[in-house]
Amino acid sequence: MIRKSDITKLTALTLLLSATGFAQEEAATTEQLQNNINIVWTLVAATLVMFMQPGFAMLEAGLVQAKNSVNILMKNLMDFCIGSVMFFIIGFGLMFGSSTSTGGWLGTDYFMLHGITGGADWTYTFWMFQVVFAATAATIVSGAVAGRIKFHSYLIYCVAICAFIYPIFGKWAWGSLLNDNGAGWLEGKGFIDFAGSTVVHSIGGWLALAGAIVAGVRIGKYDKNGKPKAILGHSIPMAALGVFILWFGWFGFNAGSTTTGDGEIGRVAVTTNLAAVAGAIGAMITSWILFKKPEATMTLNGVIAGLVSITAGCYTVTPIGSLAIGLIGGVLVVFSVLFIERVLKIDDPVGAISAHGVCGAWGTLACGVFGAEAVLGIGDANTGFLYGGGFSQFGVQFLGVIAAFIWAFGTGMALFTAIKYTVGIRVSPEVEREGLDTHEHGIPAYTHDMGEEAPMVPVID
Amino acid sequence: MIRKSDITKLTALTLLLSATGFAQEEAATTEQLQNNINIVWTLVAATLVMFMQPGFAMLEAGLVQAKNSVNILMKNLMDFCIGSVMFFIIGFGLMFGSSTSTGGWLGTDYFMLHGITGGADWTYTFWMFQVVFAATAATIVSGAVAGRIKFHSYLIYCVAICAFIYPIFGKWAWGSLLNDNGAGWLEGKGFIDFAGSTVVHSIGGWLALAGAIVAGVRIGKYDKNGKPKAILGHSIPMAALGVFILWFGWFGFNAGSTTTGDGEIGRVAVTTNLAAVAGAIGAMITSWILFKKPEATMTLNGVIAGLVSITAGCYTVTPIGSLAIGLIGGVLVVFSVLFIERVLKIDDPVGAISAHGVCGAWGTLACGVFGAEAVLGIGDANTGFLYGGGFSQFGVQFLGVIAAFIWAFGTGMALFTAIKYTVGIRVSPEVEREGLDTHEHGIPAYTHDMGEEAPMVPVID
Amino acid sequence: MIRKSDITKLTALTLLLSATGFAQEEAATTEQLQNNINIVWTLVAATLVMFMQPGFAMLEAGLVQAKNSVNILMKNLMDFCIGSVMFFIIGFGLMFGSSTSTGGWLGTDYFMLHGITGGADWTYTFWMFQVVFAATAATIVSGAVAGRIKFHSYLIYCVAICAFIYPIFGKWAWGSLLNDNGAGWLEGKGFIDFAGSTVVHSIGGWLALAGAIVAGVRIGKYDKNGKPKAILGHSIPMAALGVFILWFGWFGFNAGSTTTGDGEIGRVAVTTNLAAVAGAIGAMITSWILFKKPEATMTLNGVIAGLVSITAGCYTVTPIGSLAIGLIGGVLVVFSVLFIERVLKIDDPVGAISAHGVCGAWGTLACGVFGAEAVLGIGDANTGFLYGGGFSQFGVQFLGVIAAFIWAFGTGMALFTAIKYTVGIRVSPEVEREGLDTHEHGIPAYTHDMGEEAPMVPVID
Repeated sequence: MIRKSDITKLTALTLLLSATGFAQEEAATTEQLQNNINIVWTLVAATLVMFMQPGFAMLEAGLVQAKNSVNILMKNLMDFCIGSVMFFIIGFGLMFGSSTSTGGWLGTDYFMLHGITGGADWTYTFWMFQVVFAATAATIVSGAVAGRIKFHSYLIYCVAICAFIYPIFGKWAWGSLLNDNGAGWLEGKGFIDFAGSTVVHSIGGWLALAGAIVAGVRIGKYDKNGKPKAILGHSIPMAALGVFILWFGWFGFNAGSTTTGDGEIGRVAVTTNLAAVAGAIGAMITSWILFKKPEATMTLNGVIAGLVSITAGCYTVTPIGSLAIGLIGGVLVVFSVLFIERVLKIDDPVGAISAHGVCGAWGTLACGVFGAEAVLGIGDANTGFLYGGGFSQFGVQFLGVIAAFIWAFGTGMALFTAIKYTVGIRVSPEVEREGLDTHEHGIPAYTHDMGEEAPMVPVID
Repeated sequence: MIRKSDITKLTALTLLLSATGFAQEEAATTEQLQNNINIVWTLVAATLVMFMQPGFAMLEAGLVQAKNSVNILMKNLMDFCIGSVMFFIIGFGLMFGSSTSTGGWLGTDYFMLHGITGGADWTYTFWMFQVVFAATAATIVSGAVAGRIKFHSYLIYCVAICAFIYPIFGKWAWGSLLNDNGAGWLEGKGFIDFAGSTVVHSIGGWLALAGAIVAGVRIGKYDKNGKPKAILGHSIPMAALGVFILWFGWFGFNAGSTTTGDGEIGRVAVTTNLAAVAGAIGAMITSWILFKKPEATMTLNGVIAGLVSITAGCYTVTPIGSLAIGLIGGVLVVFSVLFIERVLKIDDPVGAISAHGVCGAWGTLACGVFGAEAVLGIGDANTGFLYGGGFSQFGVQFLGVIAAFIWAFGTGMALFTAIKYTVGIRVSPEVEREGLDTHEHGIPAYTHDMGEEAPMVPVID
Repeated sequence: MIRKSDITKLTALTLLLSATGFAQEEAATTEQLQNNINIVWTLVAATLVMFMQPGFAMLEAGLVQAKNSVNILMKNLMDFCIGSVMFFIIGFGLMFGSSTSTGGWLGTDYFMLHGITGGADWTYTFWMFQVVFAATAATIVSGAVAGRIKFHSYLIYCVAICAFIYPIFGKWAWGSLLNDNGAGWLEGKGFIDFAGSTVVHSIGGWLALAGAIVAGVRIGKYDKNGKPKAILGHSIPMAALGVFILWFGWFGFNAGSTTTGDGEIGRVAVTTNLAAVAGAIGAMITSWILFKKPEATMTLNGVIAGLVSITAGCYTVTPIGSLAIGLIGGVLVVFSVLFIERVLKIDDPVGAISAHGVCGAWGTLACGVFGAEAVLGIGDANTGFLYGGGFSQFGVQFLGVIAAFIWAFGTGMALFTAIKYTVGIRVSPEVEREGLDTHEHGIPAYTHDMGEEAPMVPVID
């Protein structure tokens, strides 16, 4: 990035060479080159984040029953489709438009990308990066309500979250990212959520919590004594593929959130990766202790837990800090899944509430614990209490976590309840037992025509 | 990009500083930096487009029967392999070589990348970007002829399309992309096909039409009264993964077609994404109305339809224009699939003719309707009739669409008919019934050894 | 890249303009821009290489039985997790730390990224690129020992390879990549292995050989007369997806190994792609001749063989040279698989020893045959004997190949034998027969709940 001191010197050169008419152009060119580097990096990152959609789709489809897998895929597909349109029309403007007149609570322009001038305007790239974040928030919910809610009710939910619920909270925390007139009230207090542990993941997670509560538990999930029964996912390889894709995309999610192509992106990628691996290790060990086996779905959720946990602090913590944050996230997700299933008796088929809601909150708070700008040589603010920064940053983080819970869980309960008592939220017991795929979409996920007398034995000698 | 006016000023500086011997080097460096940004962006985009190969492979394999899925994967793999070699030896030269002597109908150099000097020559990166386009055109056909044609006949087809059919049309529309001496006759008329709705997708789609006609329908596709029967795809999750991968790769396909790393790529990504989501929505609503259900495979094809439709105009239409283009594409693909299956009675197992051929034509024409360079601030040519540009651009687009149909369908019919009456095109009915996988490749797609007494019940308490 | 001659001229300009205080800053900025381009490119490449993990996971899971597929996925996941942590703590320092004091045999600093100053230090990006290479070396082994070794024994192995075995050989061949004080003894002799045919793939392949020998053959692999029986992979589409993902990631692996964003990356991508397609063609034709059918898994392995073979020479051979190298690699892998299975009677379920060990050695030697720097206009060293360079380069390559075999196979035998006689390496026959998934991880890969009376017939009229 061009520092201000450079610009002063640039001006000196401009004066010296102004007779040639060249200097000003040259200065612009240097800045333009860095802008172009930023644009290439940010668009590549946006593309990676977009690819998280099939990551979620494969993870969730793998963890539900075969009879409901087309339905969950359609939900993952359509939330991105509906979400993109709504974010284009309304959401982006609410989130990044000027908000001085609303005290940092709501944006008031940029609707339908109105007012952009010039085909190469940065706003296009920025919009592309942001729309995939909005879709991520939306898609988190689909897993938690899998196997039981109506397709058209889900579409209504998508309209609400991508047009209003997500972008309004986003304004509070990230409103100034596009222009200085857009600052939100929460970022004004120094709230840190670099890539969205709270803004994207907790918001999605608490909406998922509301959805799972209102939708109720799947038939057969609990026996008459309230004891939970495992309803196994139909394809663990599919779920594993989904997790790997999400991990891949997360490099765009976190390192892309710099929206600047310089050396900082390498560091963010390092913390992101270390937290992911620590999350997997943490969850694997925890499941090994609890169940006597390194359980696969818990370990996979551990990767997600690590990634969600580091998302807020990926820019401001050290590599060692990221290992600690991810490890704790990995342990946390196992206990949270068990607590939600066995104590709260809420049915979350893929563990989305734990991985995104709970770990998102943890990761946001962790910025107040492990923040280490001075150690990293990147500044002197945002110091966590482990690095001598006291508890003020932790307090701000706590405020943001609470605000996110109140906003997302509150609006989520209102929204799902409204849907429940209008168009209805739950499919009939018959449809649920026979599977949503054929009833809602007219097609089964799988057919098995392997040919007449398909050889199941070696055919090459 | 360095504008010509900059270069004039650059020359002034060169004169001023020439005593130091530095200025010329410095100017080169600034230009070189942008070149390097362009190279990085274009190569990343090429890599994304290459990844569309497994996108097509998964989509097509998911939509055919399990007994033919290895065969379709092998075809998708080998068309890229054969295609890369043929495009290296012949195709690239025909498409991008100098063509002044042939009136813009055929290129005459660059065969086997001959004549490239210097290890960092742009031509390498450009070749990589173009070879994956050629492979895309080839692979479109595989789905339309799935489940019934011989493997070695398919390989012959791949040689012809990547060496001759695709690159010759490519020359006409895109010949000048590498050097000014390569301009094709169609681009000389002002034909717009920014990333290949016609050059890649319609060419592939019309070849697919020829192939499906010559190959004939699969056994059991139509009953005695000519009524079509659905032959369900064996894995909708696999098909859905394929569509998501294609969508991901399409950001490289469209935004990469600028081959320049600047702000325009963000805008192209926005129009690409909006058309994709609108295509899905259009197809979903149409299927919902027609079948009373939001049908999954039609919705998936809607994504492809939206993407193919915006490929020609992604650079010259507004975001709102792209929504309209994609939406219409999504509606169109459903009716086209039904028309081809029920009226024309041509058996296209994956809907390739509709998604690529028909929507490619629509997208190309749409440039003459929605073109809006002046509105976007990127120029003043190519104005569609909705923006006051009259029908001249539409006329040129129509010419290109017709030329593509005549060329691809014509050569395709000749090619597949020649194959049919020489080496043969169709497998025996016995092979077709038992599946191409074991007969043609010696291996079934799936075996199901889940272990002795594999527990289908929860195993963790 | 800034050449030295440029720097001299830069100094002249610095003197001329030093009065303004600007020149030095401007020079830094120009260099910084190229650095930023390099960082963006290298990090994107690292992300692509990271994505090779699911490539290996899908390939290996597809090629093993369904009952062992969760286990192989967990191994692929956890080797990256354990490997990242060990490489962070120890491996990276051994590989890239200063090694003047150890004569180029061991690095002595950079442990836990200690000593990095500044949040934008190149070392972060470089670490991210290198850690995914280390994980690749580790994960190669998992396929060769699939279906029979204990999970916790595998984890111990991962610690050893990523902390010590891989990085120590890496130091010898690549030690100077981060700093001049880190040069290894083998690179001092002029050994060429641009992206790791030997450093990554052969090392992984020879470790796999040791593992497969110590682990022994799977139950039922050979009959009483020692005749091998094919144990078919459970999902060829999954394996094919894995191969395509690996191919995609390999553009990062090879072209990213320049760690510089300039035109050379395009050329490296071209040679990489041509070798991959030639490998597939070579393996397909070979299998067609031997088995009378174009066999699918051999063809898929041919892609990997071509890619591994070109990895050493991707920067220094011509496109035509890369076709030859890949084609030979594709032929070689088929014969090697048959030789290892039928003559050596070593059980390698996925062909990892052949694809990575044998083809890695071939590719490394091929640099001494096809090296063509002068022809490419990139230098005058490293000329292979086909281009008049005599046999000196071939001799150095041969030395490196032998050193890699002795080191990796030697330490591998010691390691796996030590594991065997301490914690044990092999699961019980009962577990092997029933599958590792339920016994080791408490979960089957698949359940098949398609709903009550799931329709296997068309459901849309």
